[in-house]
Amino acid sequence: MPILVIANKLYSSWSLRPWLLLKQFGIPFEEIVIPLDQPDTKARVLEYSPAGKVPILIDGSVTVWESIAIVDYVGEVFGAPVWPADRKARGMARSIAAEMHAGFQALRSACPMNLGKKYAARDRGEAVARDVARFSEIVRQARKEFGQDGLFLFGSFSAADAMYAPLVTRLDTYSIALDATTQAYVNAILALPAFQEWRSAALEETWIVDADEVDEEPTAIYRKAA
Amino acid sequence: MPILVIANKLYSSWSLRPWLLLKQFGIPFEEIVIPLDQPDTKARVLEYSPAGKVPILIDGSVTVWESIAIVDYVGEVFGAPVWPADRKARGMARSIAAEMHAGFQALRSACPMNLGKKYAARDRGEAVARDVARFSEIVRQARKEFGQDGLFLFGSFSAADAMYAPLVTRLDTYSIALDATTQAYVNAILALPAFQEWRSAALEETWIVDADEVDEEPTAIYRKAA
Repeated sequence: MPILVIANKLYSSWSLRPWLLLKQFGIPFEEIVIPLDQPDTKARVLEYSPAGKVPILIDGSVTVWESIAIVDYVGEVFGAPVWPADRKARGMARSIAAEMHAGFQALRSACPMNLGKKYAARDRGEAVARDVARFSEIVRQARKEFGQDGLFLFGSFSAADAMYAPLVTRLDTYSIALDATTQAYVNAILALPAFQEWRSAALEETWIVDADEVDEEPTAIYRKAA
Repeated sequence: MPILVIANKLYSSWSLRPWLLLKQFGIPFEEIVIPLDQPDTKARVLEYSPAGKVPILIDGSVTVWESIAIVDYVGEVFGAPVWPADRKARGMARSIAAEMHAGFQALRSACPMNLGKKYAARDRGEAVARDVARFSEIVRQARKEFGQDGLFLFGSFSAADAMYAPLVTRLDTYSIALDATTQAYVNAILALPAFQEWRSAALEETWIVDADEVDEEPTAIYRKAA
């Protein structure tokens, strides 16, 4: 059984992606959680991958790191239809997944993934607004051109949805206003049973990562401890 | 014939990747060059892709953007063996390509791709040194485990080499000291006929992009004009 090495479910946006993908495609795996920001975090991650970053998928003698590389490995080796079959949809799905992998820096930096709290809407600057606008544009284009037969970007759940899932949680956590199409898509991701399972486990965690806690008064606190 | 939309060959690291890949795998394509930093740059790029970034591959009705997405499209649709066939090598190749796509920020920021000049070696800080060390570690691991039958990371030229080609040019431009294995790999990339073709065309360009010109006295100037 493959092993997925991840970090805190409450905070680790990169980890959520392959975990959600494997769950959604019904691929059994074991998980190892290495909490962020502990004295031995770096050393523990390096035991699994020389890149020193989670997530890491270990499948027998094969080690794959970086969420987008794991996605393709899962598609090729476990036979999961991670990308849409249609060539045009598939081209866009791969493009937006890659765009996510290296982009949306302003939104990611201003609004760290944090499933334990909710914050009020507020002006978060032009760069964040541009990232949100680009995300909405992606959702509207994908849903209109390719998403008619389902709730997700390309109809059925695909790797593109897994790649954007952490960003979706940020939009919710920081109460960012969205158009109806984008909000409906956000709701569809948040309602996924696999995401609910991740979220429940996240709320059981007690670790706090200061760098991912913004300096604002939350409007809600969901965690049991901490 | 597919169309590849790119930016200045002298400076555009993202553009070099798919261009080199298509050339190396013998896939004919037309190219459109949109120079960076001009009043109409943004508008011209947006004519081809809503993401507003080069490179962009247009194949009939399909538009693909982001270098790593183009790589996979080329592999799937044009049947090019862009990734190593061996599962373990392929897993590492995909992982390091993704690591490049979102990483090596310090080196990329301190040492912009600039094929027109050469600079002397100097201390460029710890973060840059860490990026160089990680790259060397990747080269040594790939060459040792998978690269014995050729000059490239996984023996024959693959998408992983295309993804790292811009970084390789930076190591050369900024005279960064390397171990023998890494230097031999750098030399192999720089000697590729396709790279030489790109470089010759770059040196014919006359555009200057101030943001990519570091404030140091070059030890050599290769450009004919400018």
